[in-house]
Amino acid sequence: MSVTDITDIVRRMSVAVINYDRAMGRWEPNARGRLEQAALELYMERGFEQTTVAEIASRAGLTERTFFRYFADKREVLFWGAGSLQEFVVSTVALAPDSVAPIAAVAAALEGAGALLQERREFARQRQTIIAANPELQERELIKLASLAAATAAALRQRGVRDPAASLTAEAGIAVFKVAFERWINDTSRRELPQLIRESLEELKTVTAGRRSPARDRARSRAVKRSAGA
Amino acid sequence: MSVTDITDIVRRMSVAVINYDRAMGRWEPNARGRLEQAALELYMERGFEQTTVAEIASRAGLTERTFFRYFADKREVLFWGAGSLQEFVVSTVALAPDSVAPIAAVAAALEGAGALLQERREFARQRQTIIAANPELQERELIKLASLAAATAAALRQRGVRDPAASLTAEAGIAVFKVAFERWINDTSRRELPQLIRESLEELKTVTAGRRSPARDRARSRAVKRSAGA
Repeated sequence: MSVTDITDIVRRMSVAVINYDRAMGRWEPNARGRLEQAALELYMERGFEQTTVAEIASRAGLTERTFFRYFADKREVLFWGAGSLQEFVVSTVALAPDSVAPIAAVAAALEGAGALLQERREFARQRQTIIAANPELQERELIKLASLAAATAAALRQRGVRDPAASLTAEAGIAVFKVAFERWINDTSRRELPQLIRESLEELKTVTAGRRSPARDRARSRAVKRSAGA
Repeated sequence: MSVTDITDIVRRMSVAVINYDRAMGRWEPNARGRLEQAALELYMERGFEQTTVAEIASRAGLTERTFFRYFADKREVLFWGAGSLQEFVVSTVALAPDSVAPIAAVAAALEGAGALLQERREFARQRQTIIAANPELQERELIKLASLAAATAAALRQRGVRDPAASLTAEAGIAVFKVAFERWINDTSRRELPQLIRESLEELKTVTAGRRSPARDRARSRAVKRSAGA
């Protein structure tokens, strides 16, 4: 699958999401975005637990009723995107040409998902700060990732990949995504997520093959010095 | 790290666990084992939610007070082993000789953990059935696996492995373990867990390298026929 294919899929999916949002929000311009922004501000200021739906609606200049038109509860503000992300990954894996190896199909799908997330970097960073502060939200995030792995494995089985290869390819893809995502969130160099996903996959290939990165021995000798000095 | 080393570590850790249990249970012979057995029976018969600590103690012929000497709550009966497992994996990774590649150190640690679990296969199967029936327990299991991945990555960093290699090696190891564990639980061939872990690691190497298993195309053509017939 070429980068052009991914870009095209991302563009079509983005258009779908935008149209959907416009239809939902014809009474209140960009209600979803305003509620999301208000919720994130309040979760950052007061903490997730301490924030009520009434406060979110009020900060957004909307009613609670409008809030519940978009989100089932205040947790949903942080997780509604996970469903679309999963659908995107599953359909991209399904659409990959037959000639593409399973790991390449999964990597292409995750890079595409990364490109979608890249457009919302600031949201993603704030969201991660909020989740890191709350064990219940961390559990939810782990469940979403496990669900993404299971759905990806199912999509691979549909392509005729057998187990355990299907499960392992999916789990490897999610591991790559998770590590790349953490680097992206914490990285000060502002490298883009799809690039970090590609690098993480290359690194996974290196480490599973049992090869060392050249920096390892230097790092090790530093670690030994540090611990000797402690 | 050789198989003999792993066997030796497993033997030493098992002795430590047995001695600890004997010390704890000097008033009630094998109290932990009796409580665990009683709890599993009740969780299987009535469901986890519907079982009380009083019922577990009663079925084991012990008091609630004795139950709480061993377990913080009824969930702990299913998860107390995860802490020991994690300590085992972390210390085995730490003890691996310098010459061992990070993925090999992690694999050896997980095979050792697999050997410990192999001795409790029936317990593990029943436990998995109970967890699969309860979303709260599934979340707990995901958290324990995430914690195992984080602790393994930290142990690799202590060996001088840098990120993202440390995180990816740990995540890859946990993916291998998870897939092997599921096969072990569901496998009717009664193959042993350490063997399934070795096979899963080989399969991960194959899939990340982008190679196909020879069975793939046959399986795919079957899947296409099935979906055309549906």
